[in-house]
Amino acid sequence: MRLRAAELGILFAVGAAGGLIGDAGHVQAGTTTYLDDATPFIWESALWFPILVGLATASIGELRLRLGAPRPGFDPLLGLAGIAAVLAIYAVTALVYDEPEGPATTLVVMLAVLVACWLGGGGPALVCGIAAALVGPLAEIVIVELELAEYAPSADSLAGVALWLPALYFAFGYVAARLAELLVARRRA
Amino acid sequence: MRLRAAELGILFAVGAAGGLIGDAGHVQAGTTTYLDDATPFIWESALWFPILVGLATASIGELRLRLGAPRPGFDPLLGLAGIAAVLAIYAVTALVYDEPEGPATTLVVMLAVLVACWLGGGGPALVCGIAAALVGPLAEIVIVELELAEYAPSADSLAGVALWLPALYFAFGYVAARLAELLVARRRA
Amino acid sequence: MRLRAAELGILFAVGAAGGLIGDAGHVQAGTTTYLDDATPFIWESALWFPILVGLATASIGELRLRLGAPRPGFDPLLGLAGIAAVLAIYAVTALVYDEPEGPATTLVVMLAVLVACWLGGGGPALVCGIAAALVGPLAEIVIVELELAEYAPSADSLAGVALWLPALYFAFGYVAARLAELLVARRRA
Repeated sequence: MRLRAAELGILFAVGAAGGLIGDAGHVQAGTTTYLDDATPFIWESALWFPILVGLATASIGELRLRLGAPRPGFDPLLGLAGIAAVLAIYAVTALVYDEPEGPATTLVVMLAVLVACWLGGGGPALVCGIAAALVGPLAEIVIVELELAEYAPSADSLAGVALWLPALYFAFGYVAARLAELLVARRRA
Repeated sequence: MRLRAAELGILFAVGAAGGLIGDAGHVQAGTTTYLDDATPFIWESALWFPILVGLATASIGELRLRLGAPRPGFDPLLGLAGIAAVLAIYAVTALVYDEPEGPATTLVVMLAVLVACWLGGGGPALVCGIAAALVGPLAEIVIVELELAEYAPSADSLAGVALWLPALYFAFGYVAARLAELLVARRRA
Repeated sequence: MRLRAAELGILFAVGAAGGLIGDAGHVQAGTTTYLDDATPFIWESALWFPILVGLATASIGELRLRLGAPRPGFDPLLGLAGIAAVLAIYAVTALVYDEPEGPATTLVVMLAVLVACWLGGGGPALVCGIAAALVGPLAEIVIVELELAEYAPSADSLAGVALWLPALYFAFGYVAARLAELLVARRRA
């Protein structure tokens, strides 16, 4: 692994905590509903959800480092801002899920594009964003197919998940990749 | 013309495509309604709407270049971010059109101010922003007067159009001006 | 005082005007309601509200200068952008007050974190942000206890005020601190 165990742990913890906060918003708003209570819950989420998001965060971070040399420069405020940006978009999706799908999706897509333009990072970051935008929604489509959870009827037009979901994961991929870069830069700081 | 034919074509295409996306959000949300189906439609829009927005984008770009030397530096991500910012604000207007007019207008105005402060550009950019903020809403007021389209009762207090409409066009003017600068800088890149 | 009388006056005027605009949004949306009409009103606000916000803005500015040397560099657009950012968040709170408290609070908190990361300023700015996040909501809790005003039932879970209120004041504190720095830098510009 290119990331050290402690760094993978940090990414896992950040992702799991962010997943918990974002998912609580979805559940409280009614964007998503858990259909199966066979597994333990933590806050509003089935235990496996924050674990999956944490694993995805660490995986995207590791993927980023395998795609090329990370950018130098350790700036913890940049990492904090990236996390805040994804959680802000996550909260926006919870607030607009029952709005018309067209403008809601446009808003989330454009916010994700703004995050990507802001963080930059070229090809490697773009690959991480696209990988997250593909794998994340696919995993959630499987979750819906397994009847473990469902999206509200106003936000389920992408094979059962929301049309804006790939954009949310796209922004997440960019931020996870940037966090991995910052963790490597932190070794020398 | 200061802009070459291909550059005017790019601005027209970007504006027309952006107008289509933004207008689809307005129509789907119910912010605006077309009242006349005598002209052909494309997606949710009467054909003349994206054409007008495309012409406005190219015109603002040409105006920008006649107002002074453009800034150097070709950064396609800056152009992409500018387009995304305007479309994000456009989507916000679709989502808040039925909210109280005061805070909805404050939000759109402040987002437009943030776009202007971010893109900068001094007097020439400001002139483009103000020109767009005047001409765009005036054109839409004429469209409403001609009974070709109408704004929802919750968003028609500015002579039949929305109170936040000048702010949306103000941000559009700043971005169109910046895109024109980037196209000139691209000649040497 | 570290700030000159004219500078304190500018901060007071900016804060009072911003308070009027933001509060009008809250009143028009129904986020807050004034319960006492014994005092004169200005626009939608009881006269004492913009006065208190103006005094708080000047106080935070003065506090900032007592906490350490201000950063150099006079950039009026940065000040304008800071004011616009706080008023945008203020308007967001008016628009989401009747949404589920979880995602609404997450959104406002994350926007405030983004403002803090953007403006930076280290320890002194953080102290100003935290001071505002403590004193502002406490003052509003007293106002609610005195039955001068109330928050809507969907936004009163923090001892009668909204759960997102500290985050709004946190962003306000950062911006007031930055404005004070800019005013000092303006002396040499």
